[in-house]
Amino acid sequence: MFMTSGAEIERLIQLLAKLPGLGPRSARRVALQLIKKKETLLSPLAEAMAEAAERVTTCSECGNVDTTDPCNICASSSRDVSILCVVEEVGDLWALERAGTYRGQYHVLGGTLSALDGIGPNDLNIAKLTERAQSDEVVEVILAMNATVDGQTTAYYITDKLEQSGVSITRLAHGVPVGGELDYLDDGTLSQALKARQPF
Amino acid sequence: MFMTSGAEIERLIQLLAKLPGLGPRSARRVALQLIKKKETLLSPLAEAMAEAAERVTTCSECGNVDTTDPCNICASSSRDVSILCVVEEVGDLWALERAGTYRGQYHVLGGTLSALDGIGPNDLNIAKLTERAQSDEVVEVILAMNATVDGQTTAYYITDKLEQSGVSITRLAHGVPVGGELDYLDDGTLSQALKARQPF
Repeated sequence: MFMTSGAEIERLIQLLAKLPGLGPRSARRVALQLIKKKETLLSPLAEAMAEAAERVTTCSECGNVDTTDPCNICASSSRDVSILCVVEEVGDLWALERAGTYRGQYHVLGGTLSALDGIGPNDLNIAKLTERAQSDEVVEVILAMNATVDGQTTAYYITDKLEQSGVSITRLAHGVPVGGELDYLDDGTLSQALKARQPF
Repeated sequence: MFMTSGAEIERLIQLLAKLPGLGPRSARRVALQLIKKKETLLSPLAEAMAEAAERVTTCSECGNVDTTDPCNICASSSRDVSILCVVEEVGDLWALERAGTYRGQYHVLGGTLSALDGIGPNDLNIAKLTERAQSDEVVEVILAMNATVDGQTTAYYITDKLEQSGVSITRLAHGVPVGGELDYLDDGTLSQALKARQPF
């Protein structure tokens, strides 16, 4: 084992290598850059991480991560409480927020049902969703799961669960991505786009 | 600006995006992963960074980074003090250490001469190198700069500087990389490998 640069640097590299998208080689590059920019990057990042570790929590209402519980979105008075958008992960919630058109509430499942990985309904934030959907305020639940097998399986399961609550259940539209070229699209997407064609 | 997830998370993402190899998108992915693995990744990494920021320093002898000054390599009694290997950056020193065959001392320049970037001899750790080379202990200086224009310019400049110190100056061999295929090598490397051919 390579140990000429002190246990502290070695430990930093090993932890950095666990981050998604970084391997041992890029972790070393990141560590060197951090050490080089100690004042402007390493110290601020250490502080930001310590603060995040201390303050970030999961919203008990929707499953979003934030420094407050309930989170900023759940606590906001300017958002429509009659619509719930169900997403798999917090990253999906961020993506929808970046798009900037949705003004309702969210519900983060924390994953998808997966027989292969042994993830059942009790491992996801589903009980809370059925509870929220039964509230009188909610009139629509949008299922915004990924268009994967696991995502769609989860969507069907939730549809089943919410049947009796009387809310209207919708899903995101399938179709040609904005800026996309037909020639590069898969057959399934093209068929869906054709079936769901709209008046021009 | 997207600000639904709290200023702390936003700040963490912005700092992560400054790391080499990470952009805004991958920084968000890293931030989510960190928050998800708060106990096993975020907190330890925050601690490791704080400790590195506090303890890591530059060796006043050779320019290496370590938690001690002089660094572990300069302070080691098992290393050959008669050979100095001059490298551009600490990353090059790490690469040579990983190779595991060199048992001498190092000297880190902290970059290369570059007229374009306005980097002159006084911006590099060259004065200290000439001082070290004049010591009676040192008999050989290996120039292990990158085989780039700037690296080789720096090597020539240092050769000039060290001429009067009487040490023998060597450079790394050019040739076919181990595991490399001739067909994919550039002409310059092939010519050098042919010129420097060795008895089999």
